[in-house]
Amino acid sequence: MSNYSITPLHPETAAAHLFHVRQVAPLVHCITNDVVQEITANVLLAVGASPAMVVAPEEASHFAALASALSINIGTPRQETLQAMHLAVKSAVKNHVPWVLDPVAAGVIAWRDQMINGLIALNPTAIRANASEIKALAGFGQGGKGVDSTDSSESAIDAALALARKTGAIVCVTGETDYITDGKEILSVSGGSRKTTMVVGTGCSLSAMVAAFLAQTEHPLQAAASACALAKLAAHQAASVASGPGSFKVAYIDALNLIQAKDFY
Amino acid sequence: MSNYSITPLHPETAAAHLFHVRQVAPLVHCITNDVVQEITANVLLAVGASPAMVVAPEEASHFAALASALSINIGTPRQETLQAMHLAVKSAVKNHVPWVLDPVAAGVIAWRDQMINGLIALNPTAIRANASEIKALAGFGQGGKGVDSTDSSESAIDAALALARKTGAIVCVTGETDYITDGKEILSVSGGSRKTTMVVGTGCSLSAMVAAFLAQTEHPLQAAASACALAKLAAHQAASVASGPGSFKVAYIDALNLIQAKDFY
Amino acid sequence: MSNYSITPLHPETAAAHLFHVRQVAPLVHCITNDVVQEITANVLLAVGASPAMVVAPEEASHFAALASALSINIGTPRQETLQAMHLAVKSAVKNHVPWVLDPVAAGVIAWRDQMINGLIALNPTAIRANASEIKALAGFGQGGKGVDSTDSSESAIDAALALARKTGAIVCVTGETDYITDGKEILSVSGGSRKTTMVVGTGCSLSAMVAAFLAQTEHPLQAAASACALAKLAAHQAASVASGPGSFKVAYIDALNLIQAKDFY
Repeated sequence: MSNYSITPLHPETAAAHLFHVRQVAPLVHCITNDVVQEITANVLLAVGASPAMVVAPEEASHFAALASALSINIGTPRQETLQAMHLAVKSAVKNHVPWVLDPVAAGVIAWRDQMINGLIALNPTAIRANASEIKALAGFGQGGKGVDSTDSSESAIDAALALARKTGAIVCVTGETDYITDGKEILSVSGGSRKTTMVVGTGCSLSAMVAAFLAQTEHPLQAAASACALAKLAAHQAASVASGPGSFKVAYIDALNLIQAKDFY
Repeated sequence: MSNYSITPLHPETAAAHLFHVRQVAPLVHCITNDVVQEITANVLLAVGASPAMVVAPEEASHFAALASALSINIGTPRQETLQAMHLAVKSAVKNHVPWVLDPVAAGVIAWRDQMINGLIALNPTAIRANASEIKALAGFGQGGKGVDSTDSSESAIDAALALARKTGAIVCVTGETDYITDGKEILSVSGGSRKTTMVVGTGCSLSAMVAAFLAQTEHPLQAAASACALAKLAAHQAASVASGPGSFKVAYIDALNLIQAKDFY
Repeated sequence: MSNYSITPLHPETAAAHLFHVRQVAPLVHCITNDVVQEITANVLLAVGASPAMVVAPEEASHFAALASALSINIGTPRQETLQAMHLAVKSAVKNHVPWVLDPVAAGVIAWRDQMINGLIALNPTAIRANASEIKALAGFGQGGKGVDSTDSSESAIDAALALARKTGAIVCVTGETDYITDGKEILSVSGGSRKTTMVVGTGCSLSAMVAAFLAQTEHPLQAAASACALAKLAAHQAASVASGPGSFKVAYIDALNLIQAKDFY
């Protein structure tokens, strides 16, 4: 294990970044998987961002240049969508638009890993993934069970550091506790609810939230961690009122919208 | 500004059209975007219609001829889907099946506008869009922020009239107040809730509702306005019980189903 | 009408199979239609399974071999997806992974029927469909209204028996009462709620639940019927608390998660 120290994200930081994202109301260009389109859009709207799923190769490049941030999720890739992703990412990088990669199911299938590595080579501002995925990308493990992690987030801290240093990206490894690192500092966010894992798209939409928080910020590490903190707090609030995963999802989206900066204290 | 008068939709008219759509139980053929597939189907089911997302070019033409109405939404176009749209629309027109166009994000990207204009050339029965989109289509403005409007619906009345006259379509410009025009008369529908804008697909699914209401009617202008009135009333009811956008969406779908003709009075 | 006897599924059997599926926590590979991606994943998660929508031809074969079960739904076919379906199914069969076919809208369009028959030729472990679809596949009828059944499930029992004998698959014809047959025995499951038909994807996600229940079982007929029994019980519970289809969907997913083996008694 490496020698490192972990700093819990300060509530005031999360509060300031939430306030900021609601002021910016960022336009978030999303190219995501078939399963989580709706929840991703609704999560972004709840947070105060403006989602736009622009997926055609003919317009992806143009649109990414107009966007405040770009969110790329590799869940259900098609050749046409993959082409749009590359065009959007290149345009984002050229126009200094921050972009986030969600490398769904990294480490399970070689073809998918190749595709993910092709995107990592385009310098994501941040990578948000579960422990099994981060370990696989860092060359520390074998991937999880399908799209689900089989490892704790703690066990992926070394891998997250290594991946951040290798790629220059902020790496967010989310789980029971989230760890967010730029390869130097490590921030942690705890809280949340296990019910989060029973609703599809909570992780994928968190990646899009990270993109929203990265818009127009000078503190990307803190911004990414603040997105994680908002998700944790919303999940905690939702779990306290929900009876099962159906009502949890509804309450989670409500909470993302209703939480105010002061609620972090 | 043009010289025109606006007539609020009469509650009895909305009531009669709701009664009618529940009796007809129209089969609504939808080719819509990746994000709003589920809410569109659930909204149509709630209203009493039967949704069918038939998207393959091989069957779109055949199916449109069987349908009571056709709803086309350009949100996330792909070449294959676009081909299916053209086949479905041509079949609908040939078979006197009313069809509705939702020109998502018109005015933002030239490629998309070209695609939208190609569909408008096929004579939609109605066009349902937000103010920025209607202005862009009428040549009066520059489009909104991504998929969201940056203009009030009031400011798009002239554009709606011009677009209706140019295309022969009924134009529904929806916003805080909805305006529905055939280029001669203008009907208005007010009420609703701002929370509607925080749930993805409320606009897109309204376009599909307009299609459902256009099935087997001899009063298409009133039918389209009645669909808008049902959406407004459902949103109003939902807002009174919802705490945030998650619960608003649930209550909105409930209300669409539970509202009876008499509730318009 | 054939001479046959129908046995109601024993509550203890349903209880045992629910217990089993939660222990196995099967990885269910799904290739399904555009509309029901999210509800299918959430239903599987609620039940205790692990969904994975792996749809690219490049990885479908590899992934199906890793999965506990495979669920194929033909709702919105594309050439690319159809190719992935064939690759996944062949891999599943080769690796003794059970697979379920949901032949959406069979009997409505010749092109679609041809595609469905091509999949049936690959020997599904089970076929789950509504009465109109089962009749059409057995050559007993003409299909329903779009994707909805126009026939009662009772009226499709003969067709279900014939289809099971012809294909070797377990056939589940679902409706007000569900009938599940291997061509010899017929099990029935009653209860449920008519509200189920007002939420898109309740049928499609039941097919995926059948796949989950078929994982690692030696009693596939009982397993398939138990999936139907869980859906019926969850729908019954949901209907008792829901006011409309929006809240019914939320309560249905909650119930799928909260129901315990003992609740079948």
